Amino acid sequence: MSTPAYIGILTVSDRASRGEYEDRGGPAVRDYLTEVLCSEWIAKPIIIGDEQPEIEAAIKQLAHDEDCCLIVTTGGTGPAARDVTPEATEAVCEKMMPGFGELMRKVSLEKVPTAILSRQTAGIRGNSLIVNLPGQPKAIAECLDAVFPAIPYCIDLIGGPFLETNEDRIVAFRPKKK
Amino acid sequence: MSTPAYIGILTVSDRASRGEYEDRGGPAVRDYLTEVLCSEWIAKPIIIGDEQPEIEAAIKQLAHDEDCCLIVTTGGTGPAARDVTPEATEAVCEKMMPGFGELMRKVSLEKVPTAILSRQTAGIRGNSLIVNLPGQPKAIAECLDAVFPAIPYCIDLIGGPFLETNEDRIVAFRPKKK
Amino acid sequence: MSTPAYIGILTVSDRASRGEYEDRGGPAVRDYLTEVLCSEWIAKPIIIGDEQPEIEAAIKQLAHDEDCCLIVTTGGTGPAARDVTPEATEAVCEKMMPGFGELMRKVSLEKVPTAILSRQTAGIRGNSLIVNLPGQPKAIAECLDAVFPAIPYCIDLIGGPFLETNEDRIVAFRPKKK
Repeated sequence: MSTPAYIGILTVSDRASRGEYEDRGGPAVRDYLTEVLCSEWIAKPIIIGDEQPEIEAAIKQLAHDEDCCLIVTTGGTGPAARDVTPEATEAVCEKMMPGFGELMRKVSLEKVPTAILSRQTAGIRGNSLIVNLPGQPKAIAECLDAVFPAIPYCIDLIGGPFLETNEDRIVAFRPKKK
Repeated sequence: MSTPAYIGILTVSDRASRGEYEDRGGPAVRDYLTEVLCSEWIAKPIIIGDEQPEIEAAIKQLAHDEDCCLIVTTGGTGPAARDVTPEATEAVCEKMMPGFGELMRKVSLEKVPTAILSRQTAGIRGNSLIVNLPGQPKAIAECLDAVFPAIPYCIDLIGGPFLETNEDRIVAFRPKKK
Repeated sequence: MSTPAYIGILTVSDRASRGEYEDRGGPAVRDYLTEVLCSEWIAKPIIIGDEQPEIEAAIKQLAHDEDCCLIVTTGGTGPAARDVTPEATEAVCEKMMPGFGELMRKVSLEKVPTAILSRQTAGIRGNSLIVNLPGQPKAIAECLDAVFPAIPYCIDLIGGPFLETNEDRIVAFRPKKK
């Protein structure tokens, strides 16, 4: 049997981190992954405020200390002064993956014209793929439905574990030969 | 009554700034806003040449001294050596908004295949949203039609005045609850 | 008669550069250009490994010493540790052209969901347009079909030679008046 995949779920929210507000983004990501993944995985959840140094530290911890192949953030991607998740992500990534943000904005734009205000991005740090998602549970599933088919192969390419999906829900695309 | 919104209209053109050429971009932006906005607003027009330091200084002046919640630039977004508006914009913004450029190129691409040559972007500096537009009047309306529905809510989120639109022309989208 | 256009074809591949693998990307780019261009042009091919300093040096050599108006790279645009072509491109370009990557990913996405993993970009250095393409021959033609209609006009704007296309294959778009 293969070892389980560790997946970081990083909720970025001032109110949720202070306990003034129930975190809904993190559980929505976890529920989504539970539904979609059929290979073994373990969630590594963290909740922090909208502070760039804290977000950077949390991503690094999940990537290195927790050995996460995938780190999904939720929240902090808008235009407001406190929204700094994309900046923190870019600061800790060695490579940026612009295609993730482009596609997520495209699918969100089919729902609401304010999708262009979402600054979410994705990138690679070492053997970890970091993907920013919006904070709203409904938008989380929409965005993950769009990008998830490419995530298992991306994790293969960066040296991570082999993720398998429930194919009636999401078909992970892997090219026949490289 | 609420105070009026100040909107910067920054024409970037060597020829227009030297008076060799009538500025058509700036008036096209002003006409568009007059047609679309029904809340009170005041235009703050500036015409300058394609020099990065001058463009940066003009954006800062409009953002701070003129208290503009929205600064629309026109011109200087192409690939030619003198086209530096996106670089000036990025240099003065704290946050970039990649969804604006993506959507404007997408709608322009339905008209002309050279739309991919437009490097226009958008970003936030303090309480101001800066949006780059192309120089051609026809392309200005096309681009603004695509992104304007998201602009009033963006300005709400960055602490600006409440913009209202003529809803038979553009419906400003604001989510029911945040 | 006008002088010929020099076009750099830069294959970025560890295996091809060591001769362990036949370069297929470079010939695919050359075949494409032969089919599409009807004005005179001369190919300047280079094959190198996936090392950022080598890629940067090769782009500079093609731009300056070889006087290439267009430099097409193939390979090294994925998420793997050795894939650094976009970083090398960005490091040597004065201006980035985000519309190229956006459109190429969009057309590739119609074929495979993993198109979002391609980080390819484009940019300008002096009088040269640099365009990243994926390594796979099939994807090369798909991507060039999407962006080539805009390339001759882009090269006009940056002071390069006048490229003419076989119009039954690709119609180079040039606006009637600037």
